[in-house]
Amino acid sequence: MMNFKLLFLIILNFLVIISCSEVANKKKSATKPPYAIVIHGGAGTLNQKEMSKEKAMQYTNALDTALTIGESVLKNGGSSLDAVEKTIRYLEDCPLFNAGKGAVFTHDGKNELDASIMDGKNQMAGAVGGVTIVKNPISLARAVMEKSKHVLLTGIGAETFAKENNLEIVDPSYFFTENRWNSLQKIKAEEDSIEQSKRSENPDKKFGTVGCIALDNNGNLAAGTSTGGMTNKRWNRFGDTPIIGAGTYADNNSCAVSCTGHGEYFIRYAVAHDISSLISYKKMTVEEAGNEVIMKKLVEKGGEGGCIILDSFGNIAMPFNSEGMYRGYAKPGQKKIQIFKD
Amino acid sequence: MMNFKLLFLIILNFLVIISCSEVANKKKSATKPPYAIVIHGGAGTLNQKEMSKEKAMQYTNALDTALTIGESVLKNGGSSLDAVEKTIRYLEDCPLFNAGKGAVFTHDGKNELDASIMDGKNQMAGAVGGVTIVKNPISLARAVMEKSKHVLLTGIGAETFAKENNLEIVDPSYFFTENRWNSLQKIKAEEDSIEQSKRSENPDKKFGTVGCIALDNNGNLAAGTSTGGMTNKRWNRFGDTPIIGAGTYADNNSCAVSCTGHGEYFIRYAVAHDISSLISYKKMTVEEAGNEVIMKKLVEKGGEGGCIILDSFGNIAMPFNSEGMYRGYAKPGQKKIQIFKD
Repeated sequence: MMNFKLLFLIILNFLVIISCSEVANKKKSATKPPYAIVIHGGAGTLNQKEMSKEKAMQYTNALDTALTIGESVLKNGGSSLDAVEKTIRYLEDCPLFNAGKGAVFTHDGKNELDASIMDGKNQMAGAVGGVTIVKNPISLARAVMEKSKHVLLTGIGAETFAKENNLEIVDPSYFFTENRWNSLQKIKAEEDSIEQSKRSENPDKKFGTVGCIALDNNGNLAAGTSTGGMTNKRWNRFGDTPIIGAGTYADNNSCAVSCTGHGEYFIRYAVAHDISSLISYKKMTVEEAGNEVIMKKLVEKGGEGGCIILDSFGNIAMPFNSEGMYRGYAKPGQKKIQIFKD
Repeated sequence: MMNFKLLFLIILNFLVIISCSEVANKKKSATKPPYAIVIHGGAGTLNQKEMSKEKAMQYTNALDTALTIGESVLKNGGSSLDAVEKTIRYLEDCPLFNAGKGAVFTHDGKNELDASIMDGKNQMAGAVGGVTIVKNPISLARAVMEKSKHVLLTGIGAETFAKENNLEIVDPSYFFTENRWNSLQKIKAEEDSIEQSKRSENPDKKFGTVGCIALDNNGNLAAGTSTGGMTNKRWNRFGDTPIIGAGTYADNNSCAVSCTGHGEYFIRYAVAHDISSLISYKKMTVEEAGNEVIMKKLVEKGGEGGCIILDSFGNIAMPFNSEGMYRGYAKPGQKKIQIFKD
């Protein structure tokens, strides 16, 4: 009889020890790839039935090209920072996405661009908010990180810094696209016809933003995000994209994150840093941390959007609580691009 | 013999269970006061020997008045948000501190003010960056939180919003103080005489910022921070003060935090949110979380500054890794004001 009790207690002890170490070991169970890259092109009420096959193909092709650009940097031994910057530059130059060339219009008919980048190796970061004449805000964010002692430069000051550092400057008209202009006119017409109190914040609920996170063969993570913000935005509003800890975060010891969604919620819940904290402090996997923040916390609060997450073992999560999110990833021998839920 | 083994295993099991539950119970051990308020007025290389008794008394008196203002709101059943806003308004109006009236000058000889506020009850937040004509940026931050759908408004847009919402507007010359002007001239003269590569980032290393966190008798926490930024700052740089998660955070379930220091480090390490995460996810006390982030992480990385932390049980921590930090707190029957380490 005594032997059974003893056996029971020994087993109990083992169970306690095993349950404690299991979580810590989860992350290491993945086979670590030499590199990995993940991208997003925004989230929102993308209606699968309303989207033509042709349109879906345009987005899929653009995401595919973006991944190829980033992957070729990583394959050739380039850094995750270079992969993130180059991939986002392509997405900024592509008019399909709400960043760079395809940026949405503010209430005053301007294009105000935000971007940020972060190096997971040393938590160096750079960000810009409200720039109007810089062709590739992600490259300006990187210049802020590498060539200034600051993290966040804004407005005309950031543009002066861009000129001093030979970033490519364009006339504000470069950012004109008919599609985005029409979206602004549509929202403004709706505003005129609806009482202030009944207006929705963002009638078309497309949270365009582009983002990229990468792991290079030195084991370094990087994250970057770029956006034109919210159509019809006023008062030089910044969303989560230029906010380190909200829209972007990278730490080799936890993960790289880039977000897209209703920026105000992502700021209030410090979404990117919260995901990193859950991985660091609660030993969650990228999938568990993404679900906890995007699918539970934000859903409870009404915050729509999604994010991409990558840890230094190459584990990937791409959670979103909206109808769709343009997204994709590539690892050696693997490539996947998706728009809607599968 | 068997009995000893059995006893040993039973004791071992108890120890495991006790060590798990001990941390979780730590927070509840404090006797919860009906209210509490904590303030700071900046951190940095405050030299105890060089500071005259008269100067120290001026600061002590100002901090005492600020605490009295906030305490009277809380004593009379007012909200923690009201206490935070009123206390910071006083500190903004006082020329001793680098916020509002006493703001430092930018490289171009302007005063660009940042502020943020957060409600721990629902994580609503408001912030402004780079405003030049608003007398009390903390009140503008609160208006952004309560009267817009946004969190962060900046520059001229934020000023337009301030006018539309009847905030008190002043001529930029209101922010001129001879003391701050002379600091700018001194730094610029040093710049002219020192090679760019040898310049220190912030020669006088005084990180002026004011902050207040409070707990009201409904158990709600709030946090606010306001600053003029860094003397000689350029390119419309924002520090951590307008960044929710960096300079300011509040969540009834963890704590309220307001930071002061070398803002770039506080952004990169999402200091305010990190402290909140350590309390939420690792069940640290306010003191343990403050020490972990301010005295360990930041010290390792070279990030100078400090913060104030308050949880909903009324526990207070005021860690700083610089020579001094203007700080103080009040609870029923208790009041303490300090400048240097004790």
